[in-house]
Amino acid sequence: MARQSSLPLTYRDAGVDRAAKDAVLAAMGPRIRSTHREGTLGSGEGFGGLFRLSGYRDPVLVTSIDGVGTKVRVADIAGRWRVVGADIVSHGANDVLCQGATSLFMLDYIAASRLVAEVVTEIIEGIVQACRDQEIVLIGGETAEMPGVYARDGSDIVGCTVGAVERDRVITGAAIRPGDVIIGVAGDGLHTNGYSLARAALLPPGRVAARRALAARPRELPESLGDALLRPHRPYARPVLALRERVEIRGIAHVTGGGIPGNLVRILPEGSRARIHRGRWPVPPLFTLIQRRGKVTEKEMFRIFNMGLGLLLVVQGREADSAVAHLERSGERAWVVGDILVGSRGIEIRG
Amino acid sequence: MARQSSLPLTYRDAGVDRAAKDAVLAAMGPRIRSTHREGTLGSGEGFGGLFRLSGYRDPVLVTSIDGVGTKVRVADIAGRWRVVGADIVSHGANDVLCQGATSLFMLDYIAASRLVAEVVTEIIEGIVQACRDQEIVLIGGETAEMPGVYARDGSDIVGCTVGAVERDRVITGAAIRPGDVIIGVAGDGLHTNGYSLARAALLPPGRVAARRALAARPRELPESLGDALLRPHRPYARPVLALRERVEIRGIAHVTGGGIPGNLVRILPEGSRARIHRGRWPVPPLFTLIQRRGKVTEKEMFRIFNMGLGLLLVVQGREADSAVAHLERSGERAWVVGDILVGSRGIEIRG
Repeated sequence: MARQSSLPLTYRDAGVDRAAKDAVLAAMGPRIRSTHREGTLGSGEGFGGLFRLSGYRDPVLVTSIDGVGTKVRVADIAGRWRVVGADIVSHGANDVLCQGATSLFMLDYIAASRLVAEVVTEIIEGIVQACRDQEIVLIGGETAEMPGVYARDGSDIVGCTVGAVERDRVITGAAIRPGDVIIGVAGDGLHTNGYSLARAALLPPGRVAARRALAARPRELPESLGDALLRPHRPYARPVLALRERVEIRGIAHVTGGGIPGNLVRILPEGSRARIHRGRWPVPPLFTLIQRRGKVTEKEMFRIFNMGLGLLLVVQGREADSAVAHLERSGERAWVVGDILVGSRGIEIRG
Repeated sequence: MARQSSLPLTYRDAGVDRAAKDAVLAAMGPRIRSTHREGTLGSGEGFGGLFRLSGYRDPVLVTSIDGVGTKVRVADIAGRWRVVGADIVSHGANDVLCQGATSLFMLDYIAASRLVAEVVTEIIEGIVQACRDQEIVLIGGETAEMPGVYARDGSDIVGCTVGAVERDRVITGAAIRPGDVIIGVAGDGLHTNGYSLARAALLPPGRVAARRALAARPRELPESLGDALLRPHRPYARPVLALRERVEIRGIAHVTGGGIPGNLVRILPEGSRARIHRGRWPVPPLFTLIQRRGKVTEKEMFRIFNMGLGLLLVVQGREADSAVAHLERSGERAWVVGDILVGSRGIEIRG
């Protein structure tokens, strides 16, 4: 016999409290529905979320799934959860943007060993606010309580984003040619990548000590370590889709896990090589701090972190200056950071 | 200082091994691409997966996200991972089927404290095989190594499924009327719900003891406990979409978390009540075993488990017999298990 007691077993005894979960979700219903707009059908309570696709001649759906990584550990220690809700929205929207698509709707998945109502509420609130800002419908989602699967304070946040673009407007990188230039657009901190390494480098073991470290301001930073580590992932769809109406964008790379080299290479056609000039943009002090404290090599830093560039665009050389100027008028900071050369497919980062 | 050693820190030291992950995914590439078919664009290596939507007059996209719950714990103890890969495919496809949609493509998310190549390979192989069987494109996915977030042997598997249906063919349940009948379609075991309770009732604590329990055959079962608990989630799209060409299906409920009452109520319109007759179908012995070993009340069993019915359909009374006969010719087992009455929205289960 597996059980120790002779009392009847309930789902709640087994570590899953459906009533608590239902109460949180019912309370969030009006907030979730506040993201609904043209295209949304139904109440959002069906088995699948319904979105009527209209206004496209020959639509290509572009879809991405991802999590926020171990940034959830920092959110947990700091007790600040909205940021990771916003992160999952912007991460997915930036991914589908790389193919030229506008995000239509998204779904979230929140799981933990035990769901805490206040935490789930804060995460969903962060998702809702980012969806509203970015005009993305939060069309569905799931929360799961999984005792034994997650660590005691562990939780994961996953988002799946669906966008659409006309077939003849899909961006793949295939149009990239030697002579094109690479524009880097500034990010806001680490976004959602490299947190395992950042935590190992910056946070002492133990919850109390880690919380103290997050509250402190290292002299290298203009803000507390917690504020620096918990900046939300920057969304790029609005300025980049606007830029696209003026400038031919030949490739877009979202700088996530794998850093600049690991992501830029994904859009390069055969026979072209990208060269990035290390000194063309300011690497924010948070990266320098991680590198110094963790004694991380420069190469490893570039392989793991975005190093201050959240998005890379490839445009023709003669359009580079106007592209940068247009992005800056949209409120972005952007620099010409490299160019495309003839060569075997790969990335070179020069000192 | 957070770090104990003065050696340079790498992502691998921090518990994340990108090279191992990349190797697994590269090896699985051809298998993943074997699910690609009409509509798939690109290599599958872009930031978003590309699917060209064509052949619809007025398409409604139907999307679902879900995980396989703590069934992963049983898969882990038994060392059998394909089943949970197949589960996430069928779970999502059944969800979008509830609105009448055909699944077009899906994305998976696999996360663990440490990804084991053999495990990830087996899970993806299970996903690929189920996608091929059900003609669903595996268009994207993500694997994440999250030290500190998941328990030592913990992992989670999430799937997001996108389907489509003509707008005038969306099934919502709004057409359900008093006098309609409820058809229950047999499931294959627990599918992916109730595993926390089932484990508490059936598996002793400790990995070795639990593995021994899975290998044994309780006298109530025709197979080992492991075989019974690790049956894959049954996919219903093919027989149900075929049935739909002959019979008006007014509502479809996928019996997942919340059981028959929690899911059937989701499709009931105001003013209608559903009555389920407890003796109209055979409850499989696995459920009886869980109930007896765990001393679980009948009410709790129905609130947590599918009790042998993986899907419920609502059709007009005069079409019930031909619907059941058609489903049985398609290889399903099905029964008329209840009916719709006038009353306040709710479910009654009669003994």
